[in-house]
Amino acid sequence: MDSMTLIAIASIATAGVTIAVGSIAPALGEGRAVATALSSLAQQPDASKTITRTLFVGLAMIESIAIYCLVIAMILIFANPFWNHAIIPATGG
Amino acid sequence: MDSMTLIAIASIATAGVTIAVGSIAPALGEGRAVATALSSLAQQPDASKTITRTLFVGLAMIESIAIYCLVIAMILIFANPFWNHAIIPATGG
Amino acid sequence: MDSMTLIAIASIATAGVTIAVGSIAPALGEGRAVATALSSLAQQPDASKTITRTLFVGLAMIESIAIYCLVIAMILIFANPFWNHAIIPATGG
Amino acid sequence: MDSMTLIAIASIATAGVTIAVGSIAPALGEGRAVATALSSLAQQPDASKTITRTLFVGLAMIESIAIYCLVIAMILIFANPFWNHAIIPATGG
Amino acid sequence: MDSMTLIAIASIATAGVTIAVGSIAPALGEGRAVATALSSLAQQPDASKTITRTLFVGLAMIESIAIYCLVIAMILIFANPFWNHAIIPATGG
Amino acid sequence: MDSMTLIAIASIATAGVTIAVGSIAPALGEGRAVATALSSLAQQPDASKTITRTLFVGLAMIESIAIYCLVIAMILIFANPFWNHAIIPATGG
Amino acid sequence: MDSMTLIAIASIATAGVTIAVGSIAPALGEGRAVATALSSLAQQPDASKTITRTLFVGLAMIESIAIYCLVIAMILIFANPFWNHAIIPATGG
Amino acid sequence: MDSMTLIAIASIATAGVTIAVGSIAPALGEGRAVATALSSLAQQPDASKTITRTLFVGLAMIESIAIYCLVIAMILIFANPFWNHAIIPATGG
Amino acid sequence: MDSMTLIAIASIATAGVTIAVGSIAPALGEGRAVATALSSLAQQPDASKTITRTLFVGLAMIESIAIYCLVIAMILIFANPFWNHAIIPATGG
Amino acid sequence: MDSMTLIAIASIATAGVTIAVGSIAPALGEGRAVATALSSLAQQPDASKTITRTLFVGLAMIESIAIYCLVIAMILIFANPFWNHAIIPATGG
Amino acid sequence: MDSMTLIAIASIATAGVTIAVGSIAPALGEGRAVATALSSLAQQPDASKTITRTLFVGLAMIESIAIYCLVIAMILIFANPFWNHAIIPATGG
Amino acid sequence: MDSMTLIAIASIATAGVTIAVGSIAPALGEGRAVATALSSLAQQPDASKTITRTLFVGLAMIESIAIYCLVIAMILIFANPFWNHAIIPATGG
Amino acid sequence: MDSMTLIAIASIATAGVTIAVGSIAPALGEGRAVATALSSLAQQPDASKTITRTLFVGLAMIESIAIYCLVIAMILIFANPFWNHAIIPATGG
Amino acid sequence: MDSMTLIAIASIATAGVTIAVGSIAPALGEGRAVATALSSLAQQPDASKTITRTLFVGLAMIESIAIYCLVIAMILIFANPFWNHAIIPATGG
Repeated sequence: MDSMTLIAIASIATAGVTIAVGSIAPALGEGRAVATALSSLAQQPDASKTITRTLFVGLAMIESIAIYCLVIAMILIFANPFWNHAIIPATGG
Repeated sequence: MDSMTLIAIASIATAGVTIAVGSIAPALGEGRAVATALSSLAQQPDASKTITRTLFVGLAMIESIAIYCLVIAMILIFANPFWNHAIIPATGG
Repeated sequence: MDSMTLIAIASIATAGVTIAVGSIAPALGEGRAVATALSSLAQQPDASKTITRTLFVGLAMIESIAIYCLVIAMILIFANPFWNHAIIPATGG
Repeated sequence: MDSMTLIAIASIATAGVTIAVGSIAPALGEGRAVATALSSLAQQPDASKTITRTLFVGLAMIESIAIYCLVIAMILIFANPFWNHAIIPATGG
Repeated sequence: MDSMTLIAIASIATAGVTIAVGSIAPALGEGRAVATALSSLAQQPDASKTITRTLFVGLAMIESIAIYCLVIAMILIFANPFWNHAIIPATGG
Repeated sequence: MDSMTLIAIASIATAGVTIAVGSIAPALGEGRAVATALSSLAQQPDASKTITRTLFVGLAMIESIAIYCLVIAMILIFANPFWNHAIIPATGG
Repeated sequence: MDSMTLIAIASIATAGVTIAVGSIAPALGEGRAVATALSSLAQQPDASKTITRTLFVGLAMIESIAIYCLVIAMILIFANPFWNHAIIPATGG
Repeated sequence: MDSMTLIAIASIATAGVTIAVGSIAPALGEGRAVATALSSLAQQPDASKTITRTLFVGLAMIESIAIYCLVIAMILIFANPFWNHAIIPATGG
Repeated sequence: MDSMTLIAIASIATAGVTIAVGSIAPALGEGRAVATALSSLAQQPDASKTITRTLFVGLAMIESIAIYCLVIAMILIFANPFWNHAIIPATGG
Repeated sequence: MDSMTLIAIASIATAGVTIAVGSIAPALGEGRAVATALSSLAQQPDASKTITRTLFVGLAMIESIAIYCLVIAMILIFANPFWNHAIIPATGG
Repeated sequence: MDSMTLIAIASIATAGVTIAVGSIAPALGEGRAVATALSSLAQQPDASKTITRTLFVGLAMIESIAIYCLVIAMILIFANPFWNHAIIPATGG
Repeated sequence: MDSMTLIAIASIATAGVTIAVGSIAPALGEGRAVATALSSLAQQPDASKTITRTLFVGLAMIESIAIYCLVIAMILIFANPFWNHAIIPATGG
Repeated sequence: MDSMTLIAIASIATAGVTIAVGSIAPALGEGRAVATALSSLAQQPDASKTITRTLFVGLAMIESIAIYCLVIAMILIFANPFWNHAIIPATGG
Repeated sequence: MDSMTLIAIASIATAGVTIAVGSIAPALGEGRAVATALSSLAQQPDASKTITRTLFVGLAMIESIAIYCLVIAMILIFANPFWNHAIIPATGG
């Protein structure tokens, strides 16, 4: 069980857990925001323009948090500095 | 228990956990959004067009979070860079 | 305890956990959507057509998340690339 | 503790956990759907036909998720490819 | 600690956990359905026939999920293919 | 720590856990059903006959789930096939 | 650490856990039933006879579930077949 | 670490856990029953006699569940058959 | 790590956990009862005598459950039969 | 790792956990009681005397449960009979 | 890993956990009490004197529970009798 | 793995956990208090002075609990008596 | 398993967990804020300017907490002082 | 696995956990405060000045708790006294 294997396993597991756990709250938050938007539209159809615009700004900000997690997961899989450091002696050493 | 086996196990387990955990919140969020859309339709049938459109935009954004998890799970099974790196010495070495 | 056994165990356990955990949220979400549809129908029987159509679109999207989990579970049991890679040396080697 | 035993144990435990955990959400979801159907019937007896039909479609979709879990559990007990692969060398080898 | 013992332990533990965990949700779901049926009857005594019929159909579907768990538990105790395979060499071998 | 001891321990622990966990949901479900029956009786005393009858049918179905768990627990203690198989060589062998 | 000790420990621990966990739900369920009975009595004093009778039937059924757990705990302490089997060789053997 | 010590430890820990866990639900259930009784008294002071009587019957039944746990805990400390069996060889043997 | 030390540790830990866990529910239950009593007093000041008396009976019964836990904890610290049995050979043996 | 150290560690950890866990419920219960008292005062300022008196009695009973935990924690730190027994041979032996 | 180190670690960890866990409930309870006080003030500004006084008495009692935890934590860090006993032989021995 | 390292690790981990866990409840409690203050202000703008003053007193008391945790964390990092005792022999010994 | 590998694994795992856990609360908080903003807009369209401005200030403050977690995660991956210290002897040593 | 590595790992893990866990409650609390502010603004637009000012004071106090956690995390990464003490002998020794 050499270093490379361990780093690879940690990276795989962490990447999966990060995006899995990190998707819980944004999805719930967006679901809540969309749900309230829909009931607000039903209550006040005349304000649909303001409601829709505010909804999209809010969704964008919440989605950005999910993107943070996706970015970290992607970095851990494809641009992992620890992995890059570890494979240098193993391949070129 | 060589490196390849360990990486394979970690990839299998992580892929399954990622899609399983990652599906909890989107499904709940979509269920909530659909439920509110239905009660909004019952409350204000005249606004069905705006409601339906907003619902579909919202579902798309929530579904995208589930897609992130599916993508990570698929990458871990079929395009895993750590696995690809590990099987080179085992097969071609 | 050779590699094949370990990969087999991990695949079995992950497949079961994936579909089991992955079925929680879609079932709850669909239950919620159906429940709201029913109370909406009772409240506004005239909009039954719009409500039923929106319900079916929503159920389809939520069901798709359960399908993702089923697909991953099936892949892990019947088309597992790690298992296929592992049994080559064991059988044909 | 040979390979066959381990795979057998993993299959037994996973099959049980899969159907046990996988039955939680569908049962709760169906209970919710049936409960709302009953209170909707009490509220609007005239729409009983539409309500009943929508309820049955919804129950069928939720039940299908429980069936997925049952199918995976049954596959793990009676048509397990890993077990079939493992008993070949043990019996015919 | 031979194979048979381990498989026996796993079967015993899994059978108990399966029926125990698998009984949680159906019992809660049925309790909810019965409770709503009772309050619906109190609210609309004239619809008692439709309510009772819908309740029984719903209870049957929820009970079926508990039956799935009971069936798996019974199979694991009395018709366990892994156990049957394991005792052949031990008794007839 | 021979086989018989392990099987005995597993049977004892599983039997207790099965009936303990398996009693949670039926008791809660029955409590809910009884509670709703009482408030329904207070709300509509004239429908007491229909309410009582529906309550007893519901309690019977929920109780049946607790009985499943009791049956499995009793089987594990007094009619355990694995234990019977294990004590044959120990006593008569 | 001989067999008898292990079986004794398992029996002690299981008996305690069984009655402890098994008392949670019946106590909560009875508390709920009693609470609803009291508020129903305050709401409809004239139906006190029907309410009291239904309450006692309900309490009896819920109490029966707690009795199941007590019976299993008592069997494990005072009529444990595994313990009886284990002490035969130790004392009379 | 001889048998007696292990049995003593298991008895101590189980007795404490039994009464501690077993006191959760009865206390909550009684708190709920008392609370409802008080608000029922405030709502319908004329029915105080029926309410008080029903409350005391209910409290007695819930308290009985806590007594079950206390009895098991006391048996494990002062009349433990496994302990009695274990100290015979140690003292008189 | 002799027997006495282990029994002492088990007794210390169990005593603390018993009173700590055992104080959760009585405190919550009493808090609830007191809170309802206060709001009942505010709602119906004329029934203050009946309310106060019922409250004190209820508090006494809930407090008795906390006393059970305190008694068990005190027995484990100051009148522990297992400890008394263990220190006899160590001191007088 | 001698006996004294182990007993000391167990005493320290148990004392801290006891007061920490044991403070959760009393604080929540008192918070609830105080909160209800305040809203009752706002609702019925004329009954402030009865409300305040009942509140103080209730707070005293709930506080007594926190005192139990503090007493046990203090006994474990400053009057621990197991510790006293253990340091006799170590110092005076 | 000598005795002193272990006692030091246990003291550090316990002190931190005690104050951390012990601060949860008082803070929540005080938050609740303050919140209710504020809404009571908004509802009945004339009773602000009684409300404020009752609030401060309540906060003092809840704060006292947090102080208990702080005292135990401080005793464990700065006046720990077990630590004092342990460092005597190490320094002066 | 000498004493100093272990004490350092325990101090680091405890300090972090203390402030992290200890910040949960005060933040929630303050959030609740502020939220109620805002809705009280909207409901009764004339009492803004009393409300604001009571809010600040309440926030101060809740914040004090967070400060307790911060103080313990800081003591563990910068004025840890166990650490100070441990580094004396290591540096000056 | 040398130092560098361990530090790398700890950094990877901590970075993922930090951003994953740290994204839960901000996403939920923002979802709540956006949802309330939408229903406030529907209730009082005339105050849309004040509501939108307050919403954006609030979102910014909540987002800042998510940014803290992202910063810590990024520091652990790309500017980790412990990693930098560890690779000096490994590369340049 | 020398001291430095262990301290580094503990510092990394603790820093991440501290800011991750410590961000949960402030974000939720701020979300709640902002949400209430928005609904208060919609309810009473005339009091927007008082509401906004109180909101900002409250947000500042809640944010301060998140800052405590950030400060501890930063101290653990960049100004860790235990780390500084540990690297002295390693580099200059």
